[in-house]
Amino acid sequence: MSDITRVALDAMGGDNAPGEIIRGAVEAVKQRGDIKVLLTGQEELLKKTLSEYTYPKDQIEVVNAAEVIETAEAPVMAIRRKKDSSLVVAMNLVKNGEADAFVSAGSSGAILVGGQVLVGRIKGVERPPLAPLIPTAKGVSLLIDCGANVDARPSHLVQFAKIGSIYMESVLGKKKPTVGIVNIGAEEEKGNALVKETFPLLKECKDINFIGSVEARDIPLGDVDVIVCEAFVGNVILKLYEGLGSTLISKIKGGMMTSLRSKIGALLVKPALKATLKNFDASEHGGAPLLGLNGLVVKTHGSSTSKEVCNSIIQCVTFKKQQINEKIKAAIQAQEEKKED
Amino acid sequence: MSDITRVALDAMGGDNAPGEIIRGAVEAVKQRGDIKVLLTGQEELLKKTLSEYTYPKDQIEVVNAAEVIETAEAPVMAIRRKKDSSLVVAMNLVKNGEADAFVSAGSSGAILVGGQVLVGRIKGVERPPLAPLIPTAKGVSLLIDCGANVDARPSHLVQFAKIGSIYMESVLGKKKPTVGIVNIGAEEEKGNALVKETFPLLKECKDINFIGSVEARDIPLGDVDVIVCEAFVGNVILKLYEGLGSTLISKIKGGMMTSLRSKIGALLVKPALKATLKNFDASEHGGAPLLGLNGLVVKTHGSSTSKEVCNSIIQCVTFKKQQINEKIKAAIQAQEEKKED
Repeated sequence: MSDITRVALDAMGGDNAPGEIIRGAVEAVKQRGDIKVLLTGQEELLKKTLSEYTYPKDQIEVVNAAEVIETAEAPVMAIRRKKDSSLVVAMNLVKNGEADAFVSAGSSGAILVGGQVLVGRIKGVERPPLAPLIPTAKGVSLLIDCGANVDARPSHLVQFAKIGSIYMESVLGKKKPTVGIVNIGAEEEKGNALVKETFPLLKECKDINFIGSVEARDIPLGDVDVIVCEAFVGNVILKLYEGLGSTLISKIKGGMMTSLRSKIGALLVKPALKATLKNFDASEHGGAPLLGLNGLVVKTHGSSTSKEVCNSIIQCVTFKKQQINEKIKAAIQAQEEKKED
Repeated sequence: MSDITRVALDAMGGDNAPGEIIRGAVEAVKQRGDIKVLLTGQEELLKKTLSEYTYPKDQIEVVNAAEVIETAEAPVMAIRRKKDSSLVVAMNLVKNGEADAFVSAGSSGAILVGGQVLVGRIKGVERPPLAPLIPTAKGVSLLIDCGANVDARPSHLVQFAKIGSIYMESVLGKKKPTVGIVNIGAEEEKGNALVKETFPLLKECKDINFIGSVEARDIPLGDVDVIVCEAFVGNVILKLYEGLGSTLISKIKGGMMTSLRSKIGALLVKPALKATLKNFDASEHGGAPLLGLNGLVVKTHGSSTSKEVCNSIIQCVTFKKQQINEKIKAAIQAQEEKKED
């Protein structure tokens, strides 16, 4: 295995493309010598922008792609028709083994569809989950699944629990990560039909550290490392995390500006507050991986700045070193063999 | 109609019962002459506690109930067996027309079951929703449903939208309240099976101001007055609101204590910050009504202090004055007649 992690980066995807994406690539290769970025997009534009930076030239390669997939496009049609788009070209680099990982801030739908159609699922993985890290009082937890495929079945959730545990243990270095299922009460008999069916299946799993239900109130405390839920609920949790955090912070900032006394106080607390809020900033933790594919696909926030893009690229190195895909393959295979017994 | 609102208050329900419950009743009758509280629970204990306060004696009446329903008890069994519990006795006062409203900080499950079994549903109401107010950047929004009956059908959600609109317009005085359905994207074709089926039905409703999907990220902004969702999702939103808010605030407080400089700043911003956070405190907004019943049933937080109990009692006055039940009855009847056409 090569010591270089090759990352195919969709330069044209996201609200701040290509400027912030390219800057993120430059920051990543300046920080790390073990990364090579394959930047896909309109060659001339990318080369012109790159010429404004100083960086190790052999660590960024431009791969031409004439088209761009817009966020509003229907994902399946976009993937099928725009074969020369920055997103499809970058995914094909992973598919053909020319890159180890794919990173994009572009259309979520297109990334999810492309990941399954182009990069392809690991055999036995029923549904690849999108699994972002969310900040908690104790660090981060993995929220799995936040993808676009809603109305999951119990067997999907069991796979999410296994895949999520492997990710947290291997990439985040968390030994025997705790696994909880999102529920509306702590007792086993609580919940909707999906949760009630899934709960006993998770209890039976010997290869995960299942600790039962987790109520949404307790998620921010950080006692559960792998938070299992179906995608609709996961999406609600992730988006409310973002929305409530930013509303509360802007309320607090506004509140501090109401009197001269509080304005002076605000100046004094600012540095300490900034450090605190940085810990609660999702962009610090890179992008969300789409797990269970024959290659790594990472979706970063549509509004990603260079910092988030850079973190997402660097995240891919650990993923490759830890051979996450191989570990997921082995776990799913063991499950399949158990079924056949 | 009498000008006095009679509130049956379960003195034994909740983490801080009976002390904070009784204190809440005293505060309410001291503030308002148009309220009478019927306090249910162990007569001797209640009378002894009441004797410690000065208040208009004729506004609080003790109704004896020897038993207490614990939070851990199975709701249906508890309601059936403990006929002399403070909860059942209080609900029966509403059922028999001796009280206009019921308030309790006790077991959610028992309140939801008791509401339906003892107080009874308005004819045509398929499923009475639990609808708390949540704080937003612009004031409050109604989150409907957060109850215990999960796996709702589209017709339930349509009723929630109608009932919620009536509540926001009549009790909160919001003209033509906006209605949104919680979804994972803004477009009509997004969502799970339930949302996709419900969306066109809500669009057809002439008697509500439906504005489409609302993503969880945008809930705290407060542009949607009535936030419609099924109970599992509603419960996740409500609990995450509480949990994330308190984790963030404690992080911020902790962050302010990290240096001498920030400690001095914290002292200066404290009053302004307190006012801001008060706006975002759910307990300011009283309890959550269980709507669509033949009487008002209000569930306050299990950890309610006297302030929340007092607010919940006072809330019942507006509910009675505005004849919410009569309005809900009329709206549901109109819907039923339309079906028959």
